[in-house]
Amino acid sequence: MRIAIDALGGDLAPAEPVKAALESAARHPDYTVLLVGERATVEPALAAAAGGGGAPGNIELVDSEGFIAMHAEPVSALRKQPGASIPVCVGLLKSGGADAMVSAGNTGAVVAGSMFGLNRLPGVRRPGIAAVFPALTEAGRCLLIDVGANVSCKPVNLYQYGVMGSAFARLILGVATPKVGLLSIGEEEGKGNLLVKETRRLFAERGGAFEFRGNVEGRDIFGGDVDVVVCEGFVGNAILKVAEGVSETLLRTIKAEVQQMVAGGDGGDGQALGAALKRLKQKTDYAEAGGAPLLGMTGHVQICHGRSDGRAIANAVTSAARMVEQKINERITEALHAHAT
Amino acid sequence: MRIAIDALGGDLAPAEPVKAALESAARHPDYTVLLVGERATVEPALAAAAGGGGAPGNIELVDSEGFIAMHAEPVSALRKQPGASIPVCVGLLKSGGADAMVSAGNTGAVVAGSMFGLNRLPGVRRPGIAAVFPALTEAGRCLLIDVGANVSCKPVNLYQYGVMGSAFARLILGVATPKVGLLSIGEEEGKGNLLVKETRRLFAERGGAFEFRGNVEGRDIFGGDVDVVVCEGFVGNAILKVAEGVSETLLRTIKAEVQQMVAGGDGGDGQALGAALKRLKQKTDYAEAGGAPLLGMTGHVQICHGRSDGRAIANAVTSAARMVEQKINERITEALHAHAT
Repeated sequence: MRIAIDALGGDLAPAEPVKAALESAARHPDYTVLLVGERATVEPALAAAAGGGGAPGNIELVDSEGFIAMHAEPVSALRKQPGASIPVCVGLLKSGGADAMVSAGNTGAVVAGSMFGLNRLPGVRRPGIAAVFPALTEAGRCLLIDVGANVSCKPVNLYQYGVMGSAFARLILGVATPKVGLLSIGEEEGKGNLLVKETRRLFAERGGAFEFRGNVEGRDIFGGDVDVVVCEGFVGNAILKVAEGVSETLLRTIKAEVQQMVAGGDGGDGQALGAALKRLKQKTDYAEAGGAPLLGMTGHVQICHGRSDGRAIANAVTSAARMVEQKINERITEALHAHAT
Repeated sequence: MRIAIDALGGDLAPAEPVKAALESAARHPDYTVLLVGERATVEPALAAAAGGGGAPGNIELVDSEGFIAMHAEPVSALRKQPGASIPVCVGLLKSGGADAMVSAGNTGAVVAGSMFGLNRLPGVRRPGIAAVFPALTEAGRCLLIDVGANVSCKPVNLYQYGVMGSAFARLILGVATPKVGLLSIGEEEGKGNLLVKETRRLFAERGGAFEFRGNVEGRDIFGGDVDVVVCEGFVGNAILKVAEGVSETLLRTIKAEVQQMVAGGDGGDGQALGAALKRLKQKTDYAEAGGAPLLGMTGHVQICHGRSDGRAIANAVTSAARMVEQKINERITEALHAHAT
């Protein structure tokens, strides 16, 4: 297995992607990790991070020209910088030089680059990005798909997200029969907008290798009753950002309270709780969960949060490897074919 | 001032609405509080809550027939139960028997009842529900409008939500020049769906008594850079539920950690932190913020969360009273007139 890491993607590049490469190479000694980025930047970063012993033999550098800035407009950036690290990663997928790619860079550029450079899987109308949320489910995770690849969906897109998301839940999260919910603004059948009403009908008509649970609400993403929630990319992206915002604000406020307690002399206990909070932050940090897979394209693409550290990116590599091993794309193609009208 | 409280609305009715009536009557001795609900249910609840001294003179009971269940389909419920507490409250607004109403009952029924029973303010195309979130703004609050009155919006609806929301921010939250953001999936001008792009243009064309800050993301609701965020009701409702879900899940997890610490013998400190958490929960509990005003109708309607306790409902009464005093509806009408094309 060969996995490409975008060495120049993310707020903490190249240091953290390079750390991720070292961690991934150690975790998976039989895999080859391709570090994609300008050699002049990546080589010294790798040497520094690897220390005296040098980088392990299963890391290879792949040279690229520059990188796409985090807030660049994706389509024009891809046009202007065909040799940047993101399109080079996509090119490796296309040529078979890599089985999967992981990037913490400009999400729009990763999605657009994949759309231009790869093909959709047979039967797939539009790819979707699945965010993996911590949840009270048995697997401890709930997928929200789509969180931004497709801002304006048709019912068939949402239905296909249900098929793709449940393939991920089955193969990667180990849920035997995933429960799929359709995001709406009330659980009753009559509620929601036109898209929800038509999508609900489509799920009922076509079915699939999952249990369709009808309409769910935003809070159900965390509640444990569903493994996959489907929604339009505009809504999913807003939800992702709100969840991050609430979680950060709350944890910051609590941290301030704990620091006050510690300053007030309650040293021991406050410190114990500080450690507990840190664990909690990791558990609820969506960046830690292993990246968000872009589902529906020929090639395995994992998108990481821009703030991802080395461990988060390494988790995404592990998750991407698992997708390749489990042949998720073949399973998605079969499932769509079996339940096409 | 006369304010109607739906005595039978919410998961904790009639006990909590009745407590809210007592608290409101005490807070505002010059106002009349109308408790609307079946006399046979409300009278004994009021007597029990008021204790030996009896209810104060500025509480009046208004009889109704039954109540609309929390999950009933609003339109058919209103048709079948024209004498239920929600339509009776709306009727009081319509007849001038009350200046404002507050309900923790079926939100859909409150909205539909208001739409049928009241008129839209001159110039208003569609009313919107504004949720009041805790935020890092100077006022400590950020409005998200609409959170469910209008699932399928046109650009003019979102523009008008900006006008109405900024009137609320100015008159009720005391923000001199409210900053209004348009919810999108990236701050760049080109991002978002078609609705966002057209709405952005409309804000730029018409302007208003606010500062339009362009596109914002979900996390900006809590970030302090904007006082009002406008979005389609479907998206806003999903966001509201997600924010509740994340906040509850996190606080529950932290509470469990604290309890473990207390059980482990770290009594004093754990208890202090438990109290701190309780304060935090109140601060971040959207139910506490004083209810969500339905803006754009002739009459002042405050919608409370179904789980609201007496204090939360009383806060909504105070907020409703302030809207009446500040003549928010006249100000909204003027603002829309001044910036109509």
